[in-house]
Amino acid sequence: MLNQAPENVRRIACIGAGPIGGGWAAHFLAQGYLVTSYLHDASEYDALMRLLETAWSSLEAVGLADGASMDNFSWTTDLGKATEKAEFIQESVPEVLPLKQGLYKTLGEIVDANVVIASSTSGLSMTDIQAECATPERTVVAHPFNPPYLLPLVEMIGGEKTSPHTVEWAEQFYRHAGKAPLVMKKEIPGFIATRLQEAIWREALHMVANGEATVEQIDQAVVNGPGPRWALMGPCEIFHVGGGEGGMAYCLDQFGPALKLPWTRLVAPELTDDLRKAMIDGCVEMTAGQDFASLSKKMNDGLVEIAKMKRKLKNQ
Amino acid sequence: MLNQAPENVRRIACIGAGPIGGGWAAHFLAQGYLVTSYLHDASEYDALMRLLETAWSSLEAVGLADGASMDNFSWTTDLGKATEKAEFIQESVPEVLPLKQGLYKTLGEIVDANVVIASSTSGLSMTDIQAECATPERTVVAHPFNPPYLLPLVEMIGGEKTSPHTVEWAEQFYRHAGKAPLVMKKEIPGFIATRLQEAIWREALHMVANGEATVEQIDQAVVNGPGPRWALMGPCEIFHVGGGEGGMAYCLDQFGPALKLPWTRLVAPELTDDLRKAMIDGCVEMTAGQDFASLSKKMNDGLVEIAKMKRKLKNQ
Repeated sequence: MLNQAPENVRRIACIGAGPIGGGWAAHFLAQGYLVTSYLHDASEYDALMRLLETAWSSLEAVGLADGASMDNFSWTTDLGKATEKAEFIQESVPEVLPLKQGLYKTLGEIVDANVVIASSTSGLSMTDIQAECATPERTVVAHPFNPPYLLPLVEMIGGEKTSPHTVEWAEQFYRHAGKAPLVMKKEIPGFIATRLQEAIWREALHMVANGEATVEQIDQAVVNGPGPRWALMGPCEIFHVGGGEGGMAYCLDQFGPALKLPWTRLVAPELTDDLRKAMIDGCVEMTAGQDFASLSKKMNDGLVEIAKMKRKLKNQ
Repeated sequence: MLNQAPENVRRIACIGAGPIGGGWAAHFLAQGYLVTSYLHDASEYDALMRLLETAWSSLEAVGLADGASMDNFSWTTDLGKATEKAEFIQESVPEVLPLKQGLYKTLGEIVDANVVIASSTSGLSMTDIQAECATPERTVVAHPFNPPYLLPLVEMIGGEKTSPHTVEWAEQFYRHAGKAPLVMKKEIPGFIATRLQEAIWREALHMVANGEATVEQIDQAVVNGPGPRWALMGPCEIFHVGGGEGGMAYCLDQFGPALKLPWTRLVAPELTDDLRKAMIDGCVEMTAGQDFASLSKKMNDGLVEIAKMKRKLKNQ
């Protein structure tokens, strides 16, 4: 049983002081928490403080929570001290499995078993990370997007020994702490967002390798084309809106045959009746209560704001 | 020889009154042009006017060019009348090759050979479209992103019989008309932006088909994760900034081995020395004069604005 309600957490330990660990510290500070960062070496201090200062000016512009202050930050190179009062631990050390396994072995011994330990890992599985931990039930993957203080996504999944209660508790905690947690259904390599991002990246590499597009053309194509839409809606909702009144069903029936075309190097799955139904049902549920006109207006209003913002940033 | 400088064009004919053809009409009107739309059937009029009204309120919010007015719009179901005074023609009829070929045959006869005819096609090649046109030199693909009045991208490429001068002229025209033209190096299926978008889409379909993620999870992963970045920077510049002071070179050397991992179903190209060099040189050229700190600030400032915008739209 975890020792308190997720919304009562006040003290957080951030283990690791790189861009991700430091970014998490900035986020939690802006949300009003008391944060202690564990630095592997005191020489990391200067870079961490620069990161926190940069992040803080952005966070002030977005808006701080009541009571949020850089005065609530402390740091140490003593792992025991960093974690002794922590009610939640966010681990962001380098992506080296033996390093993480050793750390979780230690944390498993020195940290109260009722305290949740979440890993920012983008590529390792918690099943592997928790292998040598004596108290693995309270460990969970919670992968942020960089910078963690401006992008809300946290992809979550437990390992084989993780308690389902830990995942629920952590999901509630992150939601309370201003993040957008996403509990995955399966452990898949790269999780969800990175897989989608990696598909674009590999198609881009193929195009440059084949002399089909330059680096700059690829970037212009995204920024001036689909990019602004992706800030507002995911690929499914975009096609659901793109299908007009007919929504995703119209889109799949109209453009399904295009899946057979060589419009990317990624081969498409068979558009079975089950997949067709899953896509349509998913879009209908996700957009429940919003008709085509309101979805379309939401997209347009967002694109107007992005167009205005880009002009403003350009003229600064 | 085309009959006048791209910046002197005043009268434009938009052939086709669907979302793309109507969207182009709205864009050109907002830029201050005189626009005549050709409707295949008068019954399309009501939907076109609804589209123009919706677009106009967005365009007013973004900002209209001097002299821009809906009074500069006219329409007809007579192809000859629609095109007789046009100094530029944007064609956006359905993606049916025989239909486009027949139309270009007719346009090739009735439209002054000095007037450029651009096709909004997203999937057909101009080599095929211009096959029956007697005056193909002035025809070119100019593929917009939807909605054409809010997203600036125009992917351009000529067919085998297109004059290089036509492509140059049209590129200048679009730039003058407030668009971001991108002249492709090769005719490749799906052009550039749609290929990148399609790679994401197919990876998403695979995940739903395999029960790895729901439709809503995929969309949340994009909108709360990489999506806001893509509104501001393309995938190459994002990794260039993500590499810190070391830029793209650091990224490729550090994360190159991850290309072998199954982080998407799209198999990566071999990261040869040539490809490595092309990626690094491309990023360095594209970001010339901007160091890591300024690129990083640009990204952060943009993400702050997107975060504020999303809060504002949510509270409306």
